[in-house]
Amino acid sequence: MTDAGERVPTRREVLHAIGVMGGASVLYQAMATMGHAAETQFAGPPNLSGARPGASVLVLGAGLAGMLATYELGKAGYTVQILEYNMRPGGRNWSLYGGDTYTELGGATQKIGFAPGNYLNPGPWRIPYHHRTLLHYCKAFGVALEPFIQLNHQALVQSAGAFGGKPQRYRDLAADWDGNVAELLAKAIDNKGLDTAMTAEDRDRLKLALREWGFLDKDLRYVRGLKSSRRRGYDRPPGGGVNGAPIPSEPIPFKDVMDSKVWATIAQHMENDHQTTMFQPVGGMGMIGKAFGRQVADKVRFGAKVTKIDQSGGAVTVTYTDLASNTVQTAKADYCVCTIPLGILSQIDLDASTGLRAAIAAVPYSNSVKVGLEMRSRFWEEDEAIYGGISFTDRAISMISYPSGGMHSAGPGVILGAYTFGPASYKFAGMPPEQRIAEALEQGSVFHPGRYKEQFIGGAAVAWSRSPFTLGCCAQWNEDTRKEHYQTLVAVDDRIVLAGEHASYVGCWMEGALLSSIDAITRLHKRALEA
Amino acid sequence: MTDAGERVPTRREVLHAIGVMGGASVLYQAMATMGHAAETQFAGPPNLSGARPGASVLVLGAGLAGMLATYELGKAGYTVQILEYNMRPGGRNWSLYGGDTYTELGGATQKIGFAPGNYLNPGPWRIPYHHRTLLHYCKAFGVALEPFIQLNHQALVQSAGAFGGKPQRYRDLAADWDGNVAELLAKAIDNKGLDTAMTAEDRDRLKLALREWGFLDKDLRYVRGLKSSRRRGYDRPPGGGVNGAPIPSEPIPFKDVMDSKVWATIAQHMENDHQTTMFQPVGGMGMIGKAFGRQVADKVRFGAKVTKIDQSGGAVTVTYTDLASNTVQTAKADYCVCTIPLGILSQIDLDASTGLRAAIAAVPYSNSVKVGLEMRSRFWEEDEAIYGGISFTDRAISMISYPSGGMHSAGPGVILGAYTFGPASYKFAGMPPEQRIAEALEQGSVFHPGRYKEQFIGGAAVAWSRSPFTLGCCAQWNEDTRKEHYQTLVAVDDRIVLAGEHASYVGCWMEGALLSSIDAITRLHKRALEA
Repeated sequence: MTDAGERVPTRREVLHAIGVMGGASVLYQAMATMGHAAETQFAGPPNLSGARPGASVLVLGAGLAGMLATYELGKAGYTVQILEYNMRPGGRNWSLYGGDTYTELGGATQKIGFAPGNYLNPGPWRIPYHHRTLLHYCKAFGVALEPFIQLNHQALVQSAGAFGGKPQRYRDLAADWDGNVAELLAKAIDNKGLDTAMTAEDRDRLKLALREWGFLDKDLRYVRGLKSSRRRGYDRPPGGGVNGAPIPSEPIPFKDVMDSKVWATIAQHMENDHQTTMFQPVGGMGMIGKAFGRQVADKVRFGAKVTKIDQSGGAVTVTYTDLASNTVQTAKADYCVCTIPLGILSQIDLDASTGLRAAIAAVPYSNSVKVGLEMRSRFWEEDEAIYGGISFTDRAISMISYPSGGMHSAGPGVILGAYTFGPASYKFAGMPPEQRIAEALEQGSVFHPGRYKEQFIGGAAVAWSRSPFTLGCCAQWNEDTRKEHYQTLVAVDDRIVLAGEHASYVGCWMEGALLSSIDAITRLHKRALEA
Repeated sequence: MTDAGERVPTRREVLHAIGVMGGASVLYQAMATMGHAAETQFAGPPNLSGARPGASVLVLGAGLAGMLATYELGKAGYTVQILEYNMRPGGRNWSLYGGDTYTELGGATQKIGFAPGNYLNPGPWRIPYHHRTLLHYCKAFGVALEPFIQLNHQALVQSAGAFGGKPQRYRDLAADWDGNVAELLAKAIDNKGLDTAMTAEDRDRLKLALREWGFLDKDLRYVRGLKSSRRRGYDRPPGGGVNGAPIPSEPIPFKDVMDSKVWATIAQHMENDHQTTMFQPVGGMGMIGKAFGRQVADKVRFGAKVTKIDQSGGAVTVTYTDLASNTVQTAKADYCVCTIPLGILSQIDLDASTGLRAAIAAVPYSNSVKVGLEMRSRFWEEDEAIYGGISFTDRAISMISYPSGGMHSAGPGVILGAYTFGPASYKFAGMPPEQRIAEALEQGSVFHPGRYKEQFIGGAAVAWSRSPFTLGCCAQWNEDTRKEHYQTLVAVDDRIVLAGEHASYVGCWMEGALLSSIDAITRLHKRALEA
C-alpha cells in the first residue's frame, strides 16, 4: 500500500546505520530512545569493520561464545582457529539422543537408549523472548524454534508440609492465592487499614478492581461459586445437553494455600526470565550448537586438551594434547579468545596478569544434576491434560518437566525427571548414574503415582560437577567477587580476552555467553587495530 | 521395567470398561472418583452399542456437531446422511486462505489475497487444554496441533484514559499491579487492618509471602531496584563484558496502573478458558473441519438449503433446495439430528412441539467481527520481541493478536486486527469489508505506529451477523432463558434432537458443540432402541 520509492527505513536499518557510524554505546543510546533497548543489550551483530591485515586469533573452546567469536572475527577478515576438548561443538549446549554415549569424571559411562527423536537437554533447555542475541543467531543459522511451555496451570505443586503431601493443581493454588489476597486487601480497606495510604475514592476504585482481578463475589468474598470457578475450574465443568450446567468447585482454605508456598512458584513463573513467550529448538537444544558448528566447521580442531597458554614474544602460543593421537602440539596466533570455563582454566598454566589469574581463581561453579526419564506413553497428556510445563516439589529433584515438543503425539516421551540445585545436586552427583535415575523415578512418582514407574523405559543422568569439560554448571558470582574481580576478568589482558557466561551478568544463560563474546571480540578488535 | 503380564490397566481402559457397563452417568461418577473429571465432561467417545437394525438418521449441518454425530452414529451402524448449506465442511470452524472467496449477506464478496500458508480464522481460533473432546478427535483424526500463545508479557495494553493513550507493556503493568497489591496488603496488616481476620502468626507469614510474591524489597516496599526489575525488566538488562551490570527500571505509579485497568486484562488471561496450555491446528483452525469432513466425506450433500422439517408419519422428511441445480428435493430418515443455528432454524418450517419452537425463538445470537491484516514482515517479532499473544485496547477493535504459528519465519504474516464485541461489532458489520479493514488498520496502529500501516499488504473481514449460514456468532443464553427453555431445547422431540454449541453450557466453543452432540446422539440412540 506504500510506494516502494517512499519506503520508510526499518528500525533495524536505522539502528544498523547508527551502529556503523557510532559504535556500540551510541547504538545503545539510540535503541533506548527508540524504545527498543529495554529487553536486551543486543544491538545487532558486531560491526568489526576490517580486521588488522594478516592478524590471527586462536579461540579456545567451541561452545557458543567461542563459535560466535570465530564466526564474527572470521567474517571481519581474521584468520581464526578453535581448539575444542570435546569431539563435538556446543559445549554445555548439548542434547543426549538415543545411541549417544557419555562418560563423566569417575569413569561412569552411559549409553543412551532413547527412541529416535527423544532427548535430554543436560544444560540449557529454554530461551526467553528477550534473549535477542541467541534468537538472532538461531534465525540467521536456520535453527527451527518452537514454544517452550514454562507455566502450565494444569501442572502440579507438591510439598511435604501441605495437603498431607498430596500434589495440587497449580491452577487451584494460584487462583486461591490471588482470590484470598484480593479478599483480604478489600477487608483490610474496610477495616481502615489503608485510610492513611490512599484517598477514599482510590480505595473504592481499588476494591472494584480487586473484585474483578480476584474473581470475588459481589460482596467481595472469595467463595465457592461460578465466579471463582471461572478461574479455578469446576467440580463439574460446563458441558453439553441435559447435564450441561456446571457445578462450582470449592476453594481451598487459605491456611492450606499458605502451607503450599505457592506464592514462590508463582513468583518463579513471573520472573522476566520465565515469562511468555519462551522457546526451544525443535529436536533438542543441541540443535543450536550443531548450527553454530556448521558455520565454523572448517576452523575447529576437536579433541584438543589445552594445557598451557603463553603470550610472550608478541604472540599467543597454546600447548595442547591431541587426544586422538595422545601427542602434545602447539598452536600460535596474534590474539586469543579464551572461553574455557574458569574451573578448568584455573588448572591450566596461564601466562596472564596476577589480577586476571586471581579473578579466575575467585569464582566458584555451581552444580546441578539433570535426569531424563523416557516413558512409554504420554500419560500426563492423555490422563491429566498436562501439556508441557513444570510440576514443582520440595523433594530433592525440585521439579519434573513435561516435554513441550511433540505434544499430542504417541509415546514414548522424555520427562525431565530431576533438576537439582545446591546440596541435593551434590548428593545426586555422588550416586552412580543408574541410581540417580532410580531416585528421580521414585521421587517424581509422587506426581503420577499409578503411572510413573509403570510407564518408565529408561533414563539418562548428567551431573555437572562430574563434567570433564566444565567441572560444574556455571559461574557463581556474588556481590563481593563482582566488585573485586569482574572488570579484571573481562578486560583484555595483553593479547588474551576471556568470554563466556562467566564473563557476563547473564550467568548460566546462553545469552550471557553470546553477549560476552560480542563485547570481548569488539574490544579485542579495537586493541588489534590500535596495536 | 515392568512385566507385561502384570500390566496395570490404564485409567483410560478402566474408564472405557465402566462406560460400556454403566453408561455415561456412572462413568462420570467414576471419573470424578479417579480425579479425572474436574477438567471435562468428556468420558471418551460414546458407546452406542448396536444401532437399531436398519435405522437411518438425517443430520442437518456439517459443522463439528453434525459431523461428529454422523461419524459416531455411522460407526454404531446407522445409515446417516448430512445436508449442508455451504460447499465445505466445518461450519464456523473455518479458515480463509489466499484464493478463497467469501460472500456475506448483502452481497459483498471478498477475494482473499493472503500469501500461501497465511490465514484468518473468522470463528474459533484457540483450544483450551481442558477441551478434551475436541483434543481427542483432533488426535484421532490426525489434526496436527501447536501451542497457541494467549498471554504474552511483552504484548501491549492501551487505553485512552491512561498514559495519555500510549501503550504499555503488559509485563510492566502486571508486575506493578501485583507489586502494589502486595505492598498495600503488607501496609494494611501493619495498620491493623487484618487483626480481627488472622492470627499474628499468620499475618507475619503472609507478609513474608507477599514480599516474595510481589517482588518487594526487604522493607516490604515495591520500589525501583534489582528485585522488582527481576520481574518487570530493566532499564538496561544484564549483559556481557564491560557494561554487563544491569540498571533497574522504575515502577509505574500505582495511580497510573489503576487507570490502565490492567487487572481486567490479567483476569481475562487467568480464566480457565485462557490458561496454558492452549492449542491451535497447524495451518489454521479450519484444518479441524477438514479432518472431520474427511471422516464423513461419503455422507455429505453440500449446497443443500433446508426449508422444511416434517416428522409426521413415523419418519422425518426434510425438504431442501439443492443450490447447484436450484431444485427442491426431499430426504427422509427415521430420525434427525438438527445442528442448524437457532437464528436460521427459527425461519424454517419445523414440525416440532410448541415448547421446542418457543425455545428456538427465545435465544438470540451475538455478533462479532474479525479482521485479518497481512503484514509484509513480522516486525512485531523483529522489532519488539513480541511472539504471539494479544495486545489489548479499549478501542472498538478490542485487541490485536500476533500469529502463534510460523514464529521466527520471514514475512508476510497475518495479524488478527480486530475482534469486536457488542455495539462495536454491529458498527463494524455495517461497514463494507474494505472499510472494516481500513478501520482496523487505523485503530491497531496505536500499538505499532511506525510500522503498522507501512507494512500492511491486504486484509479480510468477516462480520458474523452477515454470515448466511449462521446469522450471528453464537447463542446468547441468560439465566432466565436457561431456566425456561434449555431443557426443552436439548430434549429429544419425537424423532428430532438438536445439537450444537447452542445446546450446551460451553457456548461459543467447539467443545460445546461436540459435547452437545455426544449427549444428543446418546439419547437419540436410546430412544431408537426403545422404539
